[in-house]
Amino acid sequence: MTVNIGIIGLGTVGGGVYDMLVNRSDRINERVNGGIRVKKVCDIREDLGKDMNLPPGVFTKDYRDILNDSEISLVAVLTGNTKVALKIINECFENSKHVVTANKALLAGHWKEIFKKASECNSILYFEASVGSGIPVIQGINEGMAANRIDRVKGVLNGTTNYMLTRMEKEGLTMQEAEKAAIEAGFAEPDSSADINGLDAAHKICVLANVIFKTPVNLDDVYCEGISGLELQDIKLAKEMFGFDIKLLSVINVTSKGVEVRVHPSFLPSGDVLSGVKDEYNGILVRGDASGEVMFYGKGAGRYPAASAVVSDIIYVAQKINYGIAGKIPFMYTDTSGSTPVLDMENLSFQYYLRFKTIDKPGVLSTISGVLGKYNVSILSCYQKGRAGEEVPIVMVTHRALEGNLKKALREIDEMGIIKKKTVFIRLESDMEIY
Amino acid sequence: MTVNIGIIGLGTVGGGVYDMLVNRSDRINERVNGGIRVKKVCDIREDLGKDMNLPPGVFTKDYRDILNDSEISLVAVLTGNTKVALKIINECFENSKHVVTANKALLAGHWKEIFKKASECNSILYFEASVGSGIPVIQGINEGMAANRIDRVKGVLNGTTNYMLTRMEKEGLTMQEAEKAAIEAGFAEPDSSADINGLDAAHKICVLANVIFKTPVNLDDVYCEGISGLELQDIKLAKEMFGFDIKLLSVINVTSKGVEVRVHPSFLPSGDVLSGVKDEYNGILVRGDASGEVMFYGKGAGRYPAASAVVSDIIYVAQKINYGIAGKIPFMYTDTSGSTPVLDMENLSFQYYLRFKTIDKPGVLSTISGVLGKYNVSILSCYQKGRAGEEVPIVMVTHRALEGNLKKALREIDEMGIIKKKTVFIRLESDMEIY
Repeated sequence: MTVNIGIIGLGTVGGGVYDMLVNRSDRINERVNGGIRVKKVCDIREDLGKDMNLPPGVFTKDYRDILNDSEISLVAVLTGNTKVALKIINECFENSKHVVTANKALLAGHWKEIFKKASECNSILYFEASVGSGIPVIQGINEGMAANRIDRVKGVLNGTTNYMLTRMEKEGLTMQEAEKAAIEAGFAEPDSSADINGLDAAHKICVLANVIFKTPVNLDDVYCEGISGLELQDIKLAKEMFGFDIKLLSVINVTSKGVEVRVHPSFLPSGDVLSGVKDEYNGILVRGDASGEVMFYGKGAGRYPAASAVVSDIIYVAQKINYGIAGKIPFMYTDTSGSTPVLDMENLSFQYYLRFKTIDKPGVLSTISGVLGKYNVSILSCYQKGRAGEEVPIVMVTHRALEGNLKKALREIDEMGIIKKKTVFIRLESDMEIY
Repeated sequence: MTVNIGIIGLGTVGGGVYDMLVNRSDRINERVNGGIRVKKVCDIREDLGKDMNLPPGVFTKDYRDILNDSEISLVAVLTGNTKVALKIINECFENSKHVVTANKALLAGHWKEIFKKASECNSILYFEASVGSGIPVIQGINEGMAANRIDRVKGVLNGTTNYMLTRMEKEGLTMQEAEKAAIEAGFAEPDSSADINGLDAAHKICVLANVIFKTPVNLDDVYCEGISGLELQDIKLAKEMFGFDIKLLSVINVTSKGVEVRVHPSFLPSGDVLSGVKDEYNGILVRGDASGEVMFYGKGAGRYPAASAVVSDIIYVAQKINYGIAGKIPFMYTDTSGSTPVLDMENLSFQYYLRFKTIDKPGVLSTISGVLGKYNVSILSCYQKGRAGEEVPIVMVTHRALEGNLKKALREIDEMGIIKKKTVFIRLESDMEIY
């Protein structure tokens, strides 16, 4: 039986999905008895429909034409606007339709609400494209690693910032130059603030946390720090002195005290497998107690990588529709009655890279280390390499210390009148020995 | 409804599977209504059963007790012996049971036969653990990348040899020392010949080729060359001179002329993402026309990584059994009426690393390059670095040349009386410029 679908949103991803569904009927028909027919597509921008040479009657400006079409059992909701997408998806469920989406902001912000509604309406929601685009990581975690207890995820989830950091590291570009380069290469939108401030990555790690934990993780509980505070000189110094690579990492870490869910720039040892995730690529390292560490890697953005994931979802939902089991076999095992408590960043401990820009006066180093010591921040390595005519920063790597303590110590140091510029601190992701 | 299963073979993997099924009922019951019950386990080694503290009546020495148990709908066939496994799996199908296996040799050698039988009996066969162990790569390719045309796979598929090559590269161990180290570290069996001669990797790439191509690829058509011909000095020289890393690569490559399926040692540029797959890890880089390159990475061997994949398969087959659709939704889309023709290695072209050990006589280099030229093998770089008291090899990297031509040229050169020891040639996997 042919499965009729609707597509709402004909932007980059939606256009790619339509294209793939129409031009790959061979692969699709093999997997879905009777094939998939795109019965209606919708966008408020009429010109987009005109550009696509659609058969007559397929395009509509009013998404309710899709909701009210009882032949359509599956809707790909690919609008970027979160509020609009939420409204439409809820209405899809109410009209007994299954949904595929790529909207990570929507999922991260409204997980509980959406999955509660889906369950009440016996609808299913697939969303492979929301994290890592064409990389089948949601499926890999949820199905391929189904038998595992997952206790850690470390991901490079944002291609734009990874491209920027790679260019800074390799070619010595400044942050501003790197952003320009990313826009020119097509890896950043003219407004890439959600990439740079970490929000995009926070949405994605929040989605992954919700896939892993049965009780939902709220987006508000995810610690989020972007890359805008990074300076080229820290990337260079840490590379030269310690061999560290810089990444904007998204982390889920299950400890005996609770769960960490956090996004921030981190230093990694250069041999780390995530250090090999360069340019616009994404990599997600998932640790299962039986499987060990598994990494999923690929292009985390772009029209066809995203469409690849959406179409794969469509195929598998359509298959379930065809056999009358869509909405019967759950996809996510979400218990919306509670929330997973996420640990406060202040109570976590890290090793830190610190850079102090001090005034030139004897005893400064001793003052700094005294204050650090007072807050139980102990120094593993300290460097101050003088060069003629240069202002010389003091660079340190600490042992593990409590984030709250480190921040108190830095505040105190910064207020002592010996610091010329706010002290830089960057977390180390793995415990590292310095030689 | 509880799904009753049988396990045949209680070795490393089978024992791990039993353990996981019994100790993870929380995760399993969530996914399979009524849960999974291990009703019978079978091994000819009675002592294995005794060690496991099984409930009474669960252990049997006779696998027919499982075949004849009409309550058992799914059998995990985890015997290492290919012939025995083939017989048992066929009988499982004949007795209307679904099967999960990890036996790559069986799948590679009997793909057509097994899938024909499964289809005739309306049974399904899952085999995630056969390639990459706990890495969900079969599912990733078959489902997550379902909408893609896959035109290339490059994989590090054998953990034993990868561990050995990593130790040789990093620590300068010889092949013999590296093999000993792998045995000591538990990454090689006392007889690791199927790892070292490439057969294990050939089985795995053959399985992947069969997942990708609808018409089966025969194991006999897979080119297979192991690592035993490699010498430490080539690994060192290629690293020093060109920055190459060595891997035992398994490759599927779709070209306009046909399909390549081959296993052999290859040099890669050190920045290549597969170069980052070190030690006992596996990595499989899959190129889809929509998704772009996607990599799956993780531990390719071990009790629990393998059990992780087997149990995930069991969960998803049990789910299908529960909803009455097992055997209705195909897992593989295999057309057993024909075979995919695989290109002959002699007709492929590569760049080559060559090392000549020549007698010390003027004009030798010119003679060699003359013969290479006669067979259209053109030299990109040539090095002969003399050190006092050492025999000095001539090391070259060629432009792309036909394998058949290269071999003819080397045979001619080796017979000219100017070569002291058989010339070494190692293929470069990517086209590389040398600086």
